[in-house]
Amino acid sequence: MEIEQLKQQMAFIQEIDKVKYIQRKTSLFHSNRRENDAEHSWHLAMMTLVLAEHANTPLDVLKVLSMVLIHDIVEIDAGDTFLYDSTKNHDNTQEERAAAQRIFGLLPPQQAERFIAIWEEFEAGKTEEAKFARAMDRLEPILQNVSNAGGTWRQFDVPYHKVVEKKIKIKEGSEQLWDYAKELLDASVAAGNLKKEE
Amino acid sequence: MEIEQLKQQMAFIQEIDKVKYIQRKTSLFHSNRRENDAEHSWHLAMMTLVLAEHANTPLDVLKVLSMVLIHDIVEIDAGDTFLYDSTKNHDNTQEERAAAQRIFGLLPPQQAERFIAIWEEFEAGKTEEAKFARAMDRLEPILQNVSNAGGTWRQFDVPYHKVVEKKIKIKEGSEQLWDYAKELLDASVAAGNLKKEE
Repeated sequence: MEIEQLKQQMAFIQEIDKVKYIQRKTSLFHSNRRENDAEHSWHLAMMTLVLAEHANTPLDVLKVLSMVLIHDIVEIDAGDTFLYDSTKNHDNTQEERAAAQRIFGLLPPQQAERFIAIWEEFEAGKTEEAKFARAMDRLEPILQNVSNAGGTWRQFDVPYHKVVEKKIKIKEGSEQLWDYAKELLDASVAAGNLKKEE
Repeated sequence: MEIEQLKQQMAFIQEIDKVKYIQRKTSLFHSNRRENDAEHSWHLAMMTLVLAEHANTPLDVLKVLSMVLIHDIVEIDAGDTFLYDSTKNHDNTQEERAAAQRIFGLLPPQQAERFIAIWEEFEAGKTEEAKFARAMDRLEPILQNVSNAGGTWRQFDVPYHKVVEKKIKIKEGSEQLWDYAKELLDASVAAGNLKKEE
């Protein structure tokens, strides 16, 4: 039985290698080479280790790490959805749920259930851990766009009010980090890298 | 003061983006595209979440995750060392220590100390957490080479006894995972993907 479980775990470990091929819209810092989901997830995990102390409430950091490490695995089947793409549904879609069932379902049943529950908790965004994990996910592209003279804001002509509308969610995880992010957005407007309609 | 700390943390978060450019010798599963250190670190973190139950003793999983997430950051300055390169020192070198001081030193002092201590603990390989983290680091390339019909073993002509000599360390973290890995090595010999001298 134990060897059977190990084989299921190894099948999952092999399957998730595909996360490394999923390209995001955003580029690496000071670069035009686009980031993939594995690099992105690693960076969010590092940001969690470094920034957890700025959360609005004390966190179960292990749970936040689990969330950011697995949050994009469903994109193996469902693909990446750009935050500012208004033609796409950004909620936990049927396609993503089916992907979670298939991919986490490669694991032994109890472990699969645990991973799916963590992913659902992240998607729902209601617990403190989910709010902070989602704040990390929204903060990283701001840092990247700032380092790339506007990056995807400039490339896809995304105006200031739309960025703020999406990014203000950071506040639910960390008021401090939102204040910092807001300053970066204002500085980007001043630098001509983000368009603000008066 | 707090804003000063946050700026230091952001400087670190930006600096470690360079981990995404460090190429390893090993390739992704079923591929000849080489893996970079960020993808590798993410994969080890996922393996830790999935496989921690096979450790020889119960673990502080948060600490193991911290170790695998940061273990290759020093390579930004020191570069990647191939496990089978006998011309290079594989111990915690002076170059790596200087890199740890410089890169983690971007963080606020107390946090820098904490990260350096975790990295040193990983490098020393003496605690249960370090043994398991190092087992993950040694296991991933076996899985990749198996999926790539021998991969770096074939490419660099590495014989079975040398692989076993390096990989047997997995046993210190998990007897079960070493048994599994050993079977993969034997199967690779049988399949003609790993050379065993009689």
